Amino acid sequence: MISDRKLEHLLLCTHSDVEYHKKTGFKDVELVHKALPEVNQEEIDLSTSLLGKELDAPLIITAITGGHPASEIVNQKLARAAGKLNIGLGLGSQRAAVENPELESTYTIARQEAPEALIIGNIGAPQMELSSRAAEMMDLDALAIHLNPLQEAIQPEGDVDSRGYLENIQETVKNTSIPVIAKETGAGISGNDAQLLETAGIKAIDVAGAGGTSWAAVETHRSQDKSMGELYWDWGITTAASTVEVSQSVEIPVISSGGIRNGLEAVKALALGADVVGMALPVLKASYQGEEILQDFFHNFINQMKVAMFLVGASNLEELQNTDLVIQGKTREWLQERGYDTKIYARRSSL
Amino acid sequence: MISDRKLEHLLLCTHSDVEYHKKTGFKDVELVHKALPEVNQEEIDLSTSLLGKELDAPLIITAITGGHPASEIVNQKLARAAGKLNIGLGLGSQRAAVENPELESTYTIARQEAPEALIIGNIGAPQMELSSRAAEMMDLDALAIHLNPLQEAIQPEGDVDSRGYLENIQETVKNTSIPVIAKETGAGISGNDAQLLETAGIKAIDVAGAGGTSWAAVETHRSQDKSMGELYWDWGITTAASTVEVSQSVEIPVISSGGIRNGLEAVKALALGADVVGMALPVLKASYQGEEILQDFFHNFINQMKVAMFLVGASNLEELQNTDLVIQGKTREWLQERGYDTKIYARRSSL
Amino acid sequence: MISDRKLEHLLLCTHSDVEYHKKTGFKDVELVHKALPEVNQEEIDLSTSLLGKELDAPLIITAITGGHPASEIVNQKLARAAGKLNIGLGLGSQRAAVENPELESTYTIARQEAPEALIIGNIGAPQMELSSRAAEMMDLDALAIHLNPLQEAIQPEGDVDSRGYLENIQETVKNTSIPVIAKETGAGISGNDAQLLETAGIKAIDVAGAGGTSWAAVETHRSQDKSMGELYWDWGITTAASTVEVSQSVEIPVISSGGIRNGLEAVKALALGADVVGMALPVLKASYQGEEILQDFFHNFINQMKVAMFLVGASNLEELQNTDLVIQGKTREWLQERGYDTKIYARRSSL
Amino acid sequence: MISDRKLEHLLLCTHSDVEYHKKTGFKDVELVHKALPEVNQEEIDLSTSLLGKELDAPLIITAITGGHPASEIVNQKLARAAGKLNIGLGLGSQRAAVENPELESTYTIARQEAPEALIIGNIGAPQMELSSRAAEMMDLDALAIHLNPLQEAIQPEGDVDSRGYLENIQETVKNTSIPVIAKETGAGISGNDAQLLETAGIKAIDVAGAGGTSWAAVETHRSQDKSMGELYWDWGITTAASTVEVSQSVEIPVISSGGIRNGLEAVKALALGADVVGMALPVLKASYQGEEILQDFFHNFINQMKVAMFLVGASNLEELQNTDLVIQGKTREWLQERGYDTKIYARRSSL
Ligand SMILES: Cc1cc2nc3c(=O)[nH]c(=O)nc-3n(C[C@H](O)[C@H](O)[C@H](O)COP(=O)(O)O)c2cc1C
Ligand SMILES: Cc1cc2nc3c(=O)[nH]c(=O)nc-3n(C[C@H](O)[C@H](O)[C@H](O)COP(=O)(O)O)c2cc1C
Ligand SMILES: Cc1cc2nc3c(=O)[nH]c(=O)nc-3n(C[C@H](O)[C@H](O)[C@H](O)COP(=O)(O)O)c2cc1C
Ligand SMILES: Cc1cc2nc3c(=O)[nH]c(=O)nc-3n(C[C@H](O)[C@H](O)[C@H](O)COP(=O)(O)O)c2cc1C
Repeated sequence: MISDRKLEHLLLCTHSDVEYHKKTGFKDVELVHKALPEVNQEEIDLSTSLLGKELDAPLIITAITGGHPASEIVNQKLARAAGKLNIGLGLGSQRAAVENPELESTYTIARQEAPEALIIGNIGAPQMELSSRAAEMMDLDALAIHLNPLQEAIQPEGDVDSRGYLENIQETVKNTSIPVIAKETGAGISGNDAQLLETAGIKAIDVAGAGGTSWAAVETHRSQDKSMGELYWDWGITTAASTVEVSQSVEIPVISSGGIRNGLEAVKALALGADVVGMALPVLKASYQGEEILQDFFHNFINQMKVAMFLVGASNLEELQNTDLVIQGKTREWLQERGYDTKIYARRSSL
Repeated sequence: MISDRKLEHLLLCTHSDVEYHKKTGFKDVELVHKALPEVNQEEIDLSTSLLGKELDAPLIITAITGGHPASEIVNQKLARAAGKLNIGLGLGSQRAAVENPELESTYTIARQEAPEALIIGNIGAPQMELSSRAAEMMDLDALAIHLNPLQEAIQPEGDVDSRGYLENIQETVKNTSIPVIAKETGAGISGNDAQLLETAGIKAIDVAGAGGTSWAAVETHRSQDKSMGELYWDWGITTAASTVEVSQSVEIPVISSGGIRNGLEAVKALALGADVVGMALPVLKASYQGEEILQDFFHNFINQMKVAMFLVGASNLEELQNTDLVIQGKTREWLQERGYDTKIYARRSSL
Repeated sequence: MISDRKLEHLLLCTHSDVEYHKKTGFKDVELVHKALPEVNQEEIDLSTSLLGKELDAPLIITAITGGHPASEIVNQKLARAAGKLNIGLGLGSQRAAVENPELESTYTIARQEAPEALIIGNIGAPQMELSSRAAEMMDLDALAIHLNPLQEAIQPEGDVDSRGYLENIQETVKNTSIPVIAKETGAGISGNDAQLLETAGIKAIDVAGAGGTSWAAVETHRSQDKSMGELYWDWGITTAASTVEVSQSVEIPVISSGGIRNGLEAVKALALGADVVGMALPVLKASYQGEEILQDFFHNFINQMKVAMFLVGASNLEELQNTDLVIQGKTREWLQERGYDTKIYARRSSL
Repeated sequence: MISDRKLEHLLLCTHSDVEYHKKTGFKDVELVHKALPEVNQEEIDLSTSLLGKELDAPLIITAITGGHPASEIVNQKLARAAGKLNIGLGLGSQRAAVENPELESTYTIARQEAPEALIIGNIGAPQMELSSRAAEMMDLDALAIHLNPLQEAIQPEGDVDSRGYLENIQETVKNTSIPVIAKETGAGISGNDAQLLETAGIKAIDVAGAGGTSWAAVETHRSQDKSMGELYWDWGITTAASTVEVSQSVEIPVISSGGIRNGLEAVKALALGADVVGMALPVLKASYQGEEILQDFFHNFINQMKVAMFLVGASNLEELQNTDLVIQGKTREWLQERGYDTKIYARRSSL
């Protein structure tokens, strides 16, 4: 049952080691300190807009759940937080409710709790034909199609025929009333794939790179034969590399996610070119500790972001993209080999 | 006695640490994830042909044994697996049987058990004059001449006069009725040596690079004075570097081997330019656990290969050679110093 | 109370781990040994001048304290040492005494004890309007304005409005009777910021880079919620990188400081282009062990410097700046990405 | 007493940790394996000549001792080994015997025991005025002037006035009847210093680089205040880097030494351009175990050399200098920054 698998995922992700052992690459990225920031930290403006909606901070809770009775309370908590903070919220795959309308409330609760918030629906690429029904199930601002080949390849019940996806995406974009986003789920998106998606009409890309939740890891826990999951545990393009690749390759908004765990990493992602930052696992974990802790999590996170913004002298997100940062180590090696210029970030403030 | 030494090798290799401490270099090679593979994993075609024979997967069990009564059952098991899977099988050095025809059955059993399979005979470079007799001992598809200077140099009874080998190879190629392959045994082949071999008429090269079974290690266990073996334990060109060097230097088929231990590494080797991948030690170990485990080993291995193929969007081996991969770390340093371009792999899919 | 906080800082810094976990970068810098130094170590001349005063060695005790009754004895000891050695002494922030003249003696004691020494006053950037009063409080040779955004951002009571600082600095320079220095406090100064400061009329820059005392670390100990301080513990430009950036960017004297702990590191900093070297924490710690140990600390330090000078064949500071040094590792990567040439140091002696 | 200090050194070096913690750099150097060596290992010719004398192997026992009654037996053993193997032998500093002729026999024993061998006298740079007396004390083939600024700088009784050394060397060369060598004692010689020495008339250079015996380490053990010795323990140019620098800078013969501990490292040094390889500490240690062990040490060493020669396909030392090797890691970084080309070694065999 899809629905049961959803519960299993929630439990596994909050109680087991499901994260990449290799890192996001943000350790290789150093923001250049400004001794003279010329900014008032208290007036730093984190607001932005995405897909037509204003956000008070460039943050999205990326797709987590829905479709199992136990998801409803999770989505309720997440939506309340998103509403209060006026940030984005992604729902988990809506397949379960398309197939079984009784489960719709586990998704619609989000709109009830956050009437104004940016809410993003979700459907897996293998179920793209359900897109319009997912889009119409409730009042959504956008629909995310998730690309998840790693998990599909590793789980025994996975759908491993991905032929025609790009064409289907083009169709889906045409037939869907709301903007369509493409997102990975933890293995990252290359600059190349990003260009294909943009050409197909996709309106925003969530890189969901390697370094955070690993779906190979999740499937390792779920399967009896652990060797396949372990072998591919660390498969993927790191979030830092993927953020650079995608933001240097397309014009549409870029959501950087996958292993982002604090406000400093978020600011690095934004400085690398992302428009918005996404998180799933740490938000889910905080939500389990109660709504207050969940809100504290975001307040601390935003404060951490402001400290970094202050220390590089950026009073808003636009200015941030003009501050200096240095890319070192393996991430630099990756980008240089791949033909992406790293020096453009290192001294751009003085050009 | 050669024959006894053969048994000693089998036992040592399955029970002691005989592998390089330095790695194959495949850790430095990262395949670039494709979020949109546009491939059906279930229809991935691993078939290829080598030296005129079709293979269902680009795999060869490289030379292991023969020549001792105990080898017969090993070769029987290996041949049955090779036959069932329709992959290649290399026999161990045939010298023993050329010198003592009573031992022939320890080799000919392979053809009996795998009447259709690609079977490769084997003779050491110091015994090249036995080539035509080895080639005619049984129905072989090719004869491999193994180059093994590391072991020869370190073992007390080694043959350390390698003068004239290249000329002898040229002669042997002419006088042998079947195609002649050149293979190392774990210390790798440079681009330069590969060119010499191709010019001499060799029809395929098995790089057998450093990172897997180390013949210095084996000899360390066999000798009383361990210092020589320990000093040269890690001698050689890593398999990743050797695969790049050779495949950029010659037109004939390249077999990548030496420390390949799972399907992901195999796909990396193929993406780096190899036509086929070889393994000895892990196959030998699996065979000791029984025929079923041996077959499981290959099934898992092939499944692992298909996952990697799927995740880079390659539905067959030709497409694989056009997918992106990034070479980092020491392997990148080696190749850059040696004058081999690493960037050509990093973005070739979009050219 | 500012005054109490000052005491807290003194205690914390001498008893807890308050240093960067990331290093100064001087490990990446290797002076090139000269087998033929052609120097008499006993006649090495370390003297220099800064802001019009002669120094017997290019050393400054950078700003530490003042403003709390307990500071008086600290400043007394530091001033005696500075006087005897004829090196520079920086006072801690004079804000406390500007606001409460009863505390003046905790600063003026320094001039009493070291009538001839180079003594530098100190005021925080947020209190720049107090500059002229600080400058006139006592007989000072210069006034340092300290830039401390990291600490301000992290401490709960911090002043995080840094707008207009650059303009205020320009004003302050005009309205102050003595030369004005700009100094960081441990997070470093970029080449860019250095240029802005020079243009604003600043007469010397103390880079105070990352690698020594970390004000994020100090604030971690002081606050109940440790997460912010821990996250920014290692924020900043390393002292080695900052020294190169600033000395390649401005004409005014450069003081290199932040984590310098022995004479070898000091000589590296000078060879990288600094005019003078500064230290705070190790001097404070030595002073707590008594005046004799404090003097021994400096004598050993100066002897260590002379050994390095001897071994690179520099009989004075000018010659030192023409000796060879090699920059490797992360510091090299940082500088290359930032557009600073590292090779100019590596062979300059023979040009 | 010099004489007592000599004994102390012998004891310290054989019983305490007196070696560099940083390595020689030879780990960064990889010889490129040749699968087709085309060499007969048993006929590998290691002979060479240095300063007019033939050597059966390119090996020198570099300066160790003399001047204390206990040295006599050491020199006796070393000379017998040198004589039997027909390799070079360096005597320790002859200053003691110049000043006290009673000690002459501790040196002259060497010529008695090895009437034909290449024997090199020794005098410290600070005692250069004793050169002609040292040269005439016995039948020597050359006189080495040792440059030892690191030890001089660190030991309390050190002579730290090195002014005029270069001019004195020029004089000494003129006034000495035998060829004059310059040698370091473990901190290495730069390309630049090598050029100066060549111009001054020096006939061979022993780089004695960092990675083996450290004279800062020795002095750490000898002095009560250990801080100076510890700080400079790892000072110097590594043997690998120094060997490249010097051999790319001069035409006279280059002796590579400092931390060479086995035949593989020796062959690397020779392939990097050295004409001869030197060792002190391991020879001294072997000599303490008796003459047989000392001879075994050299036999094993030479066998190890032959294996490496065989595996790169060099049948003599000239051919060795045309085989491929790859320089990686920190040594590559050092050489690139210093302006020395590393790629010339990597593919020279095929040019
Ligand atoms: C429990 C859980 C369930 C998830 N379910 C979905 C899903 O239904 N659809 C989807 O697009 N992504 C899903 N994701 C992936 C996340 O949206 C995100 O891309 C990924 O976890 C990487 O971010 P992180 O490292 O911050 O967790 C899920 C993640 C978690 C942890
Ligand atoms: C027990 C054993 C025996 C071998 N005997 C031969 C041989 O007779 N001829 C040969 O060419 N290679 C021989 N090899 C070398 C293998 O063919 C192969 O090149 C090498 O082991 C590296 O591959 P691996 O790391 O997968 O083991 C032998 C390997 C093993 C483990
Ligand atoms: C206890 C203590 C108090 C300090 N107070 C001041 C200050 O009042 N003003 C200032 O400019 N810097 C102050 N600093 C910073 C130092 O001057 C110096 O820039 C910094 O500690 C880095 O150098 P270090 O690693 O050698 O300690 C203080 C440092 C310490 C350890
Ligand atoms: C006990 C001992 C005594 C030495 N005495 C001298 C000496 O008198 N003159 C000299 O030029 N070098 C002397 N050396 C230095 C060696 O010749 C050599 O340059 C140095 O030890 C580095 O080589 P190694 O790492 O193989 O020991 C001595 C070395 C040792 C271990």
